[in-house]
Amino acid sequence: MTRILFSAPRSDWEDYRDVLPAAIADAGVEATIEHALDPEDPASVDYVVYAPSSRLKDFTPFTGAKAVLNLWAGVEGIVGNETLTQPLARMVDPGLTEGMVEWCVGHVLRHHLGMDRDILRRDAVWDPVAPPLARDREVTVLGLGELGRAVAEALAALNFRVTGWSRTPKRIPELTCLSGDDGLAEALRRAEILVLLLPLTEGTRDLLDAARLSLLPEGAVIVNPGRGPLIVDDDLLAALDAGRVGHATLDVFRTEPLPEGHPFWAHPRVTVTPHIASATRPRSAARVIAENIRRGEAGEPFLYLVDRARGY
Amino acid sequence: MTRILFSAPRSDWEDYRDVLPAAIADAGVEATIEHALDPEDPASVDYVVYAPSSRLKDFTPFTGAKAVLNLWAGVEGIVGNETLTQPLARMVDPGLTEGMVEWCVGHVLRHHLGMDRDILRRDAVWDPVAPPLARDREVTVLGLGELGRAVAEALAALNFRVTGWSRTPKRIPELTCLSGDDGLAEALRRAEILVLLLPLTEGTRDLLDAARLSLLPEGAVIVNPGRGPLIVDDDLLAALDAGRVGHATLDVFRTEPLPEGHPFWAHPRVTVTPHIASATRPRSAARVIAENIRRGEAGEPFLYLVDRARGY
Repeated sequence: MTRILFSAPRSDWEDYRDVLPAAIADAGVEATIEHALDPEDPASVDYVVYAPSSRLKDFTPFTGAKAVLNLWAGVEGIVGNETLTQPLARMVDPGLTEGMVEWCVGHVLRHHLGMDRDILRRDAVWDPVAPPLARDREVTVLGLGELGRAVAEALAALNFRVTGWSRTPKRIPELTCLSGDDGLAEALRRAEILVLLLPLTEGTRDLLDAARLSLLPEGAVIVNPGRGPLIVDDDLLAALDAGRVGHATLDVFRTEPLPEGHPFWAHPRVTVTPHIASATRPRSAARVIAENIRRGEAGEPFLYLVDRARGY
Repeated sequence: MTRILFSAPRSDWEDYRDVLPAAIADAGVEATIEHALDPEDPASVDYVVYAPSSRLKDFTPFTGAKAVLNLWAGVEGIVGNETLTQPLARMVDPGLTEGMVEWCVGHVLRHHLGMDRDILRRDAVWDPVAPPLARDREVTVLGLGELGRAVAEALAALNFRVTGWSRTPKRIPELTCLSGDDGLAEALRRAEILVLLLPLTEGTRDLLDAARLSLLPEGAVIVNPGRGPLIVDDDLLAALDAGRVGHATLDVFRTEPLPEGHPFWAHPRVTVTPHIASATRPRSAARVIAENIRRGEAGEPFLYLVDRARGY
């Protein structure tokens, strides 16, 4: 009997307590699942399903664990944990990818079409100005992992002129793919609308600072469903105040929930969304976890293993 | 030398005076183009390029005209003109279709994601509720012509559950296609978001009246980039006031510009956009007109001929 520890806040357990056992049974694995902070006989736990918001921070007692399976796409809350010696898999939830594509395409179209003008309209002025076509609009996506690639491809399918940037060179049909430092500067110079879907690493922290913001075209729009610390908040606020950056739609922040007094809340050029772009959906996520447990029990390689040196 | 009369307001002429001659030359036709209300020797005009907003209403003098080529997608402003005996082609502008797809997908995603809540936010409350996935959202598109089909297919590509309805039966992969009166009732019953892309005919005028609005699910959203008279305004207002219909995003109206005192302007559940969803783009439209003139001169059948009996 395989033993699984579900280490996550109670609200997560409520989301998963039905769908996870069902998915594991569907995968043909006989298992027990416990939701506990301090389980008995931790050495006999086979798998830890883990949310970085869990109070569990010391993995030393889980000497028999074959893997730690992250419930979230982001692993920056666990990857630097020195007590973690077991293989770590991140969540690649097809529901998460779909939701991210929908959120990003929706907000890119919102800015492309200039929708806010109509939504916020308070007068009765008929001023027909048709927006340009997507084929005449430059969109840059920073990050071409699971999420970035899916978003870039969906935007290209709607005829946007999409430039994708990644640390290492990639080739994706329908996109212009750039990489490296020079590539980043060029990707930013083109970006009428910029979407941030980079993982948070020491290489990407504070990426969008005053110098890089100054490369964007006048009035560019920033859409950040990635990670808050990719952006230097004060530098973004200065660029917004000057009108150099036309708008920022931000779903993620350095501190979450975004503190009540933070200037992003009331800024007329900022839309705050409360970290809703990338919600993992329990039903599809449970199937991903179950598949990795099946693989571990069958001696097959795990999916979505984190490269601890790279940080994601 | 082929003689073309451009019969449209001056603002249209300014948009086309460069791109139309270039497109006609590219099509290999030698032609003169005049912008005039009352041209000399009307019997020798070969083609009339026509905007229904033109003051020209009597086609009787154009005894030699091989075709009237409409600058607009909608022909209801000309199709009933009894002086028009020449073949009439409507505009099928690829730029128009692309723009319509972008506008419709953008506004469907806006309502799907509940974006207004974030755009209109005035407080600093962190209330994360992830929207459902598109695969769990029912969208109905009424009308499966050039525009309706393109919009329905783009929505299906984003995983929405799309039902399309047309007067006569159609089969389109990726959609559930319904037709006829029973099909209309079922299409409305499913529509969490309803997109109207029907032509305006005697059969579609006042289509969305109180009885049909009552078939929609509670809180359904209506998006109308089609034609204003498809909807009975007072019945829609009553359904909005009662909250039975959650929101209406309207791009077209019975009277345009929408009169300043019309209740749609100030209604909290209505977004007015000033007929911008379906703008014809001169560059691509000019190529369509040039191709039809080339066909006429070569004795080939015209594209996009209007069926005068059907009305579109």
